[in-house]
Amino acid sequence: MSFSFRIESTDGAARAGVFSTPHGPVATPAFMPVGTLATVKALDPDDLARMGATMILSNAYHLHLRPGDEVVREMGGLHRFMHWDGPILTDSGGFQVFSLAQLRTVDEDGVEFQSHIDGSRRFFTPEVVMQIERNLGADVIMQFDHVIPGQSSETAARDASERSVRWLARCLAELERLESTRPLEDSSHEELRGANPRNHQALFPIVQGGIHTRLRREAAEAIQSMHDWPGFGIGGLSVGEDKGAMYEMIEAVDDALPNTHPRYLMGVGFPEDLIEAIKRGVDLFDCVAPTRMGRNGTAFTRGGRLNIKRTDFRTDPKPLDPGCDCAACSRFSRAYIRHLFVSDEILGLRLLSLHNVHFLLSLARAARQSIQNGDLEQWSRDWLTRYRTTSPLAV
Amino acid sequence: MSFSFRIESTDGAARAGVFSTPHGPVATPAFMPVGTLATVKALDPDDLARMGATMILSNAYHLHLRPGDEVVREMGGLHRFMHWDGPILTDSGGFQVFSLAQLRTVDEDGVEFQSHIDGSRRFFTPEVVMQIERNLGADVIMQFDHVIPGQSSETAARDASERSVRWLARCLAELERLESTRPLEDSSHEELRGANPRNHQALFPIVQGGIHTRLRREAAEAIQSMHDWPGFGIGGLSVGEDKGAMYEMIEAVDDALPNTHPRYLMGVGFPEDLIEAIKRGVDLFDCVAPTRMGRNGTAFTRGGRLNIKRTDFRTDPKPLDPGCDCAACSRFSRAYIRHLFVSDEILGLRLLSLHNVHFLLSLARAARQSIQNGDLEQWSRDWLTRYRTTSPLAV
Repeated sequence: MSFSFRIESTDGAARAGVFSTPHGPVATPAFMPVGTLATVKALDPDDLARMGATMILSNAYHLHLRPGDEVVREMGGLHRFMHWDGPILTDSGGFQVFSLAQLRTVDEDGVEFQSHIDGSRRFFTPEVVMQIERNLGADVIMQFDHVIPGQSSETAARDASERSVRWLARCLAELERLESTRPLEDSSHEELRGANPRNHQALFPIVQGGIHTRLRREAAEAIQSMHDWPGFGIGGLSVGEDKGAMYEMIEAVDDALPNTHPRYLMGVGFPEDLIEAIKRGVDLFDCVAPTRMGRNGTAFTRGGRLNIKRTDFRTDPKPLDPGCDCAACSRFSRAYIRHLFVSDEILGLRLLSLHNVHFLLSLARAARQSIQNGDLEQWSRDWLTRYRTTSPLAV
Repeated sequence: MSFSFRIESTDGAARAGVFSTPHGPVATPAFMPVGTLATVKALDPDDLARMGATMILSNAYHLHLRPGDEVVREMGGLHRFMHWDGPILTDSGGFQVFSLAQLRTVDEDGVEFQSHIDGSRRFFTPEVVMQIERNLGADVIMQFDHVIPGQSSETAARDASERSVRWLARCLAELERLESTRPLEDSSHEELRGANPRNHQALFPIVQGGIHTRLRREAAEAIQSMHDWPGFGIGGLSVGEDKGAMYEMIEAVDDALPNTHPRYLMGVGFPEDLIEAIKRGVDLFDCVAPTRMGRNGTAFTRGGRLNIKRTDFRTDPKPLDPGCDCAACSRFSRAYIRHLFVSDEILGLRLLSLHNVHFLLSLARAARQSIQNGDLEQWSRDWLTRYRTTSPLAV
């Protein structure tokens, strides 16, 4: 079995598990740093390894446009290209096609769109996207899905959700064809091939359905009846709907999915959302916020967010978060990092990105520990209270 | 003795030595990476330590303007502020006042100018600059000097050189006053203080004189007659004059300075210049080129410079320089680094800066080894021939 999921302990709906992949295990709940273009922005893969990242993300849409998935395949696959020997997950680009690209035409076959880079015409179908994700060679690959705005009507949501289910069947058929005709390029797979032929990528379906409980349940059921999937994505959340609706949808999907398989809540990763979703049975998360906010000068702390450019920090000798043991906090003062930002120095972008990614990785690890301790309810209440009520200057 | 210089071997005019400082020894010849604003652009101090950098540079003019030398002092001095426990040298800002700043008025007392950041009026005198360099707390501090364009007339060059010598006397008097009244903030000094009181900064004079041999010799003599200096700077070269004139000036100064003390050729650091100057008795170098060129996409290789953005490298699996063991070359292909540059990814800036700085550090180490082997002439001829005649694509 190339992929497996073992639950070590539970606390309410929350689970502490281990998701096994050909490139190593992922202790869950886990936060996956996002490397859209085969690099987690402003960080080095060694930074990620040192802070204990296990699975990282990349993106089929972006890598198809630059440098081209064929280039990545020719360079030995994504693991070798970006020098990351751990597990990788690629998103299919469904979200990007429907948010970044211009002039879309959607029909049952697929989506025609214009590249946001050079305006060139492209046509994505479930088959094309599987070919792209095969070329990239990630461990986990997401299905191509029809993504709609967060506040869409039930009719539009049903239409997109049902199409996503039909596209899922085509993704599966195409992946099975590719697995029998196009071996993975990745060298680690190559090495594994001797003793135990390994050529398999884990295709995750994506449960859509907007903010409509009934659609979410129907999608979850239709997907399960199709195949024994290695895990499930939950898509189309944190896209503008209110938090209550998001938590309700997670609960609906939690009920409707088998609790033996990993669930990945796509694009969600603010600290408070991570905790609330873990309590509702989610195992995997990703979000660009830690690196994007880091590049803008904002740091997560246990007392909320801190804008490092503020004059308050001009001569502040404390680290970003005195309770943090990341490579920024263990070496540098707020005064120094503020100086780097004020002076437009690149090291500032790296240090804040590093701190923020470390913050979310640590948060997921702390949540996992509290599930194992059986005190998730108390721990999460305390954590969120401190996060919401303490000043970042007082942590 | 806080500072000392020991020559281990010589080969012609070249020397392999060890310059001892309160923050550790510097094996010479050495290239010093430039951290103008208390950060070597796009790099982390851990990167520098891993590639064997010993002494690094920073700049009094820039740090006075941002974040302010008083801020750096309050934060424990430059070593603690930027987390560099090795030796640091600060340039006085003479070069910056005369190249970057606006609306200068020079008289015997000093220079009035406008900040290139906000246009604010500032007045630098030898005394003010020593106070700034005292606040920063570097191991080696450069005198405040009057810098003139490379092609200046002998009259203008003499005027500036003689003024620089008079300003040197004022720098020395002010530093002696500060050493008796203002202890260094740096914690490493603090720790050393218990057993062996340490409060001393090494003031280096700067030999000026444009491209006029006689002026260079007169300056070197006037400076030596004043004090037993711990080392000597050679300034005002590589500023537009031709290479022949530069090498001639280095030879003139080499003759005129005691060969028992380290010589630092300011602002010079292209590979060919480094080699030519080492052969003429220079021990220390600095240059912003490796990081500036790195951020522009240019890499040094043993076969000359390589522009990583070229289409040639789109699917090139080789490292930047196959003979290099830096943290970029040991992990990443030209194809990947090209992709990072084409996609404006920050990691690209870091990897090329890292490679280029490593290239110059290694070059200085290789020159040192060949001095110890007694084959500098042959080694340098071979090295320069390969550098000038091989294609970077063929190394």
